[in-house]
Amino acid sequence: MIALIMAGGSGTRFWPVSRQNFPKQFINIQGSTSMLQKTVERLLSKICLHDIYIVTAANQAELVSKQLPRLPKNNIIVEPFGMNTAPCIALSVEYLKSRYADGEVMLVLPADHVIRNVPVFLKSLIPAEQEARKGRLITFGIVPEYPATGYGYIEAGEELAPQVRSVKRFKEKPDKDTAEQFLASGDFYWNSGMFCWTIGAIHEAFCQLLPEIPKLTAKIADIWEVKGNEADVSEHYAIMPRIPIDIGIMEKAEKRGVIPVDYGWSDVGSWKALADISLTDNNSNHFSTTGTAIDAKGNFVQTSKFTAVIGLDNICVIETADAILVCTKDKSEEVKKVVDYLNNKGDTNLI
Amino acid sequence: MIALIMAGGSGTRFWPVSRQNFPKQFINIQGSTSMLQKTVERLLSKICLHDIYIVTAANQAELVSKQLPRLPKNNIIVEPFGMNTAPCIALSVEYLKSRYADGEVMLVLPADHVIRNVPVFLKSLIPAEQEARKGRLITFGIVPEYPATGYGYIEAGEELAPQVRSVKRFKEKPDKDTAEQFLASGDFYWNSGMFCWTIGAIHEAFCQLLPEIPKLTAKIADIWEVKGNEADVSEHYAIMPRIPIDIGIMEKAEKRGVIPVDYGWSDVGSWKALADISLTDNNSNHFSTTGTAIDAKGNFVQTSKFTAVIGLDNICVIETADAILVCTKDKSEEVKKVVDYLNNKGDTNLI
Repeated sequence: MIALIMAGGSGTRFWPVSRQNFPKQFINIQGSTSMLQKTVERLLSKICLHDIYIVTAANQAELVSKQLPRLPKNNIIVEPFGMNTAPCIALSVEYLKSRYADGEVMLVLPADHVIRNVPVFLKSLIPAEQEARKGRLITFGIVPEYPATGYGYIEAGEELAPQVRSVKRFKEKPDKDTAEQFLASGDFYWNSGMFCWTIGAIHEAFCQLLPEIPKLTAKIADIWEVKGNEADVSEHYAIMPRIPIDIGIMEKAEKRGVIPVDYGWSDVGSWKALADISLTDNNSNHFSTTGTAIDAKGNFVQTSKFTAVIGLDNICVIETADAILVCTKDKSEEVKKVVDYLNNKGDTNLI
Repeated sequence: MIALIMAGGSGTRFWPVSRQNFPKQFINIQGSTSMLQKTVERLLSKICLHDIYIVTAANQAELVSKQLPRLPKNNIIVEPFGMNTAPCIALSVEYLKSRYADGEVMLVLPADHVIRNVPVFLKSLIPAEQEARKGRLITFGIVPEYPATGYGYIEAGEELAPQVRSVKRFKEKPDKDTAEQFLASGDFYWNSGMFCWTIGAIHEAFCQLLPEIPKLTAKIADIWEVKGNEADVSEHYAIMPRIPIDIGIMEKAEKRGVIPVDYGWSDVGSWKALADISLTDNNSNHFSTTGTAIDAKGNFVQTSKFTAVIGLDNICVIETADAILVCTKDKSEEVKKVVDYLNNKGDTNLI
């Protein structure tokens, strides 16, 4: 079994820590390793480093190398620029086809998720691998913890094998009422963006469902063969359809399955989400360094120096070398407005 | 006319900016000069620098020199340690007696107050000087802006001269109801701790009302004469009664007067008080450097780097090289609890 970690995302949800050239997956959260490093680490007892591949955007490849110095250089697959997950995975599959047999099982994981219970995560890979070997496209569905309206859902059908259910439908982000019905039914899972399949099965699915993509990746493979892996393939990559794998492949594929998992997953989409999974003291305050809270509860403080919070509850205080953010947890997603503000001002060194 | 500026105070109300060895009067507020520097500056059109004296505690003398490099070295009067205003002023009067005639008028000002309307301040010195020359002990009473319970009050009587009223009584900090009565009556003024008198009149008042103090200062003057101004006088100074000038002298003196003044005075007793007198934008936010406020009003931000505040109203965000404070304005006086916390922890480099 090999792994493909998608680390090309960019975003501003963790401003001021995350930046255009330093997105979320590279951020140290909970300790001294980044989400990308943690994603690799949690695989190592099952998959050796030489079989772990990172696909990332060109401007982030150096950062990947730096954070994973022991990773072989050829295990970094470079997208000329970020497109969407279907082209990204197809490009990677093309790359892996030259190195592995069609029957090789590959696990696909985003680099910017948190999984608290690693043993349960590793256990879930066993049925995934078994079903993938049968030619199924396997997705992992997170047992929902609350009626989330921010995630897509997978509706599961009958049991295909122990721990594996058929996929009835993919559902877009629901409204509150629908989300509550989903939660109550017990048949709906959060779409985690994690997959498991053989190289041959996913390639075949691309050929059937998005045939223009493998045509382009075949051309890219030709360039790689002649000019090497660092050749410029942007001409072909630029005309890929910008489509997510869920919509382009998983919604339409015939042989597919979902493995419900419950291992403390979070896509950590905001400072609030990070706060929610962080260790806290008796007053639910989290301090990354030293600090004190007076008449203050539920605060998340990530700063480089002693920090005192007085009379405030449920706020985030974030400090970097060049910026400070103070926000309520509930409005922590509005950091994108700060990035917009800086963009409009032309203050590009802060974004 | 000469001036004596009392700059020996210590305090923690402006933690993390103010520290044990860097109290409030040395802090830069509103621009690039400190409260001490501003106190000197606003006198210079009336009193030349050679006639301005600073009395301070031994551990702060160097800081005074540094902030006032053009001040003659002999214009710094050093208390061996901070006592209270009666000993402090008596020591200074003893020092000034050797340099000026008894009839010289001296203005006494704290170094850590803010006065917004300097022309009106300077104008108030004219009747003060005139009345002081008649032998009166003059105090300046601030026309109250609201029913403050945090200040002592002076009750004024009949008019002694234009702009000068007699002093009926000094009143300790009142409760809310009393403060409202004071405000309504129009006869009560905040006790500002600013005074004007001749060297002879205040010395005479000490001899009458607190005779043990001038006995000790006379001994100190003897030491100064023999060993110079830098001689150790702590033995005598240590046994001074620790009494404020208001209680020890002003409450009991016979020839006294109060000049009501209204020139935008603030003793800036907390971050909130500083916020109240700071310039703000359309949303009542103050940023010392660059920053942005999103869904946020009435915030006071004093930081060294770009700061974003989201979803919070009426908070203070203060950053120094080694600490950050985030508090509601209303609880900004509780920074003393942070200092207590650091004291208990033995984290003395932060206080």
